Amino acid sequence: MSVRRTTTGREPHAGGRRPGESGTRESILREARRSFAESGYRGATVRSIAGAAQVDPALVYHFYGSKADLFAAAMELPLSPVRIIEGALDGDLAGLGRRIVAAFVRTWDDPAHQAPLLGMLRATLSNDASVGLVRDYISTQILTRLASRLSGADREWRTSLVGTQLLGLGMARYLMRLEPLASATPEEVVEAVAPSVQRYLTGDLGTLLG
Amino acid sequence: MSVRRTTTGREPHAGGRRPGESGTRESILREARRSFAESGYRGATVRSIAGAAQVDPALVYHFYGSKADLFAAAMELPLSPVRIIEGALDGDLAGLGRRIVAAFVRTWDDPAHQAPLLGMLRATLSNDASVGLVRDYISTQILTRLASRLSGADREWRTSLVGTQLLGLGMARYLMRLEPLASATPEEVVEAVAPSVQRYLTGDLGTLLG
Repeated sequence: MSVRRTTTGREPHAGGRRPGESGTRESILREARRSFAESGYRGATVRSIAGAAQVDPALVYHFYGSKADLFAAAMELPLSPVRIIEGALDGDLAGLGRRIVAAFVRTWDDPAHQAPLLGMLRATLSNDASVGLVRDYISTQILTRLASRLSGADREWRTSLVGTQLLGLGMARYLMRLEPLASATPEEVVEAVAPSVQRYLTGDLGTLLG
Repeated sequence: MSVRRTTTGREPHAGGRRPGESGTRESILREARRSFAESGYRGATVRSIAGAAQVDPALVYHFYGSKADLFAAAMELPLSPVRIIEGALDGDLAGLGRRIVAAFVRTWDDPAHQAPLLGMLRATLSNDASVGLVRDYISTQILTRLASRLSGADREWRTSLVGTQLLGLGMARYLMRLEPLASATPEEVVEAVAPSVQRYLTGDLGTLLG
């Protein structure tokens, strides 16, 4: 498999700065950002992004591992939200709400994540195309994984309610910096918010939907 | 008290379209928007807005009733959020969460409110000045009124948690249109979300803060 057939022709690992590789990576990220913004997360494919960047799709996988990781890299996130959520899924169902909120707060409190996440949140709201992209990504990549831990027919309803609480926590604590929430410790936030998320996951929501 | 001393000099109620009055109202709203954006909700005063619009402050009160109502008019909201929250405060504390969520969903579901509220939410996120304005407004006008119904030392912590749930509900249901939340009936949303808000208001939040 010739993963480098369409790069600039320089040999890999030929020493020095390898401008061909970094140029190719940058070109892939640029086309990924354009493609995700235009077609949404679902519509954008590794194949189409590779085509636009004039590289073999295998090279995209070689550099970025998966479409989810490519998305994270394009959004300049140091770790894919998909990996973070998958880490929180392990363990008992009764503790899932707490693990989700703890992972959420730990990620957002980390300055390396906070700046790109805020950028994504701001961009989301600036125009309808990026709203669609982020909705698509949250829905198919984050909430679907969370729903995979639940079994009821109402599991998408439940995870969309989790979405309201986490989106609002991100917006109030990190973007609006509403006090005293913004200055509370991660432990205080987890203690207060986790039971709400747990109730959405496994508690009584009334009998109207589901 | 000469409330019209700096208008264009036309007599009030002199018949016809009264362009002087509508021009004065528009000028007040324009200066109010500028002043709120520049100085925040707290910093902007009716006096300073009246000064910038070259009218007597009494005329601003005559047209708009209060600073809160002037803010709502400047944001093109058909009814001031302050009046909506005050309506929900009446009644027993045990039902406060439900009344707040019901009023929130009823207001946002109403197309006449939804467009300007979405505009405000989008503007909030576009730059730091407007983030400060909306934080200031939500904090001093909405959450403070809600906190006035509570008595514990942790009441601001509690109402900021209510803020996370309501902001996230507004963002997920109306701005992102996350499904199945966006298509759920108002009753389904109230049934599911009200207990979370009630717990933030009066329930056990752990012992870390407060």
